[in-house]
Amino acid sequence: MLDSNSNSLPDDLRDALQWRYAVKKMDPSKPVSEDKIAALLDAIQYAPTSSGTQPFKVFVITNDDLRTKIRAASFDQSQVTDASHLLVFAAWDNYTDARIDSVVDHHAEERPGTREMLEGYYGNLKGMYLPRTAETNFEHAARQAYIALAFGMLTAAQMRIDTTPMEGFDPSAVDDILGLGDKNLRSVCFLAVGTRDAANDWLAQMKKVRKTDDVLFERIDQ
Amino acid sequence: MLDSNSNSLPDDLRDALQWRYAVKKMDPSKPVSEDKIAALLDAIQYAPTSSGTQPFKVFVITNDDLRTKIRAASFDQSQVTDASHLLVFAAWDNYTDARIDSVVDHHAEERPGTREMLEGYYGNLKGMYLPRTAETNFEHAARQAYIALAFGMLTAAQMRIDTTPMEGFDPSAVDDILGLGDKNLRSVCFLAVGTRDAANDWLAQMKKVRKTDDVLFERIDQ
Repeated sequence: MLDSNSNSLPDDLRDALQWRYAVKKMDPSKPVSEDKIAALLDAIQYAPTSSGTQPFKVFVITNDDLRTKIRAASFDQSQVTDASHLLVFAAWDNYTDARIDSVVDHHAEERPGTREMLEGYYGNLKGMYLPRTAETNFEHAARQAYIALAFGMLTAAQMRIDTTPMEGFDPSAVDDILGLGDKNLRSVCFLAVGTRDAANDWLAQMKKVRKTDDVLFERIDQ
Repeated sequence: MLDSNSNSLPDDLRDALQWRYAVKKMDPSKPVSEDKIAALLDAIQYAPTSSGTQPFKVFVITNDDLRTKIRAASFDQSQVTDASHLLVFAAWDNYTDARIDSVVDHHAEERPGTREMLEGYYGNLKGMYLPRTAETNFEHAARQAYIALAFGMLTAAQMRIDTTPMEGFDPSAVDDILGLGDKNLRSVCFLAVGTRDAANDWLAQMKKVRKTDDVLFERIDQ
């Protein structure tokens, strides 16, 4: 682990994890190529989610007017407009019969011969999810979006693409700007994708701080 | 992206993402080495979290009696005991003055000369977090734990270590088994770490199914 000088992590992964930080100042003159964005979206698409529902949508925004509005709803944080691409993760506002059926239909199509099994499994899932409050279901969907956010971040780091994960925004305002209510979605987090302006970023040279093993982990072997 | 035959993702990452799946049957005779576990914990430790709070703890459990009890609270899912290590992610049940102060103290120690700035920043954070309900704060902390879960999963895949992310358990029962209430923690997800028993795993040979680009993503350029 970090404080035990373990060499067990492959060097390229260790380097990527050390290189990555939440960029506070992006250089708008250095956009990320569309090829690299496609790679990040691949990783987000591959990210696992609970029962394979992928209960979110990712808006990939380069439009400047829209980003200016979003920035105003995000404590004026510069990465929203200085990044070349703003990814907005928006989770399902609830689980519904129709949404789960669409997952069943898609899986049945991709895995011939499994419909009966799928209907049994997702029937049980409906029994669990549908009686719960919309808020509980939304929170569950939001957690899945965070897995995808994380897959995007770690993949970006390994490709030396800078990112900033962002939660500091007014979700209701962003939902309004993007018209998410009509789509039964709610914004949960951003991933600004761009290029660090290290010379003008107070955080760029700061030591990475993480909790020590004894604080973060507890082994139970005996 | 998956359905556009993009080659933008580096081969090793693409291979890892394809190789990974949520293992349903682990082979208990093939434990994961402690070196590899240490590497996974490194990735979890490096995972970014909101304002660097790392508001969770990870229990790394090999003890068989304990895992038998946890399995009984997890719909008898075999990975809980057939994995060699069970990681239980437990999020803070709330944000408190003391917990945020401990983050400030740690950062001030690691980054000399920043205490004043830190106290300003985290003072604002307290102003936002402390008036919220414990449930809202717990959900926020849980999302951070999911980022760490995801960093662990993707790193594992790249090292060809099998894992199963698990949510199917009774959180209250698991909290009781691990005595989490006394620690002001609540269980949110597991990561079972072990070795796939592909011959006996119905999911091992199934095609990976993911939503297509047009369903999962929306570009807003103009």
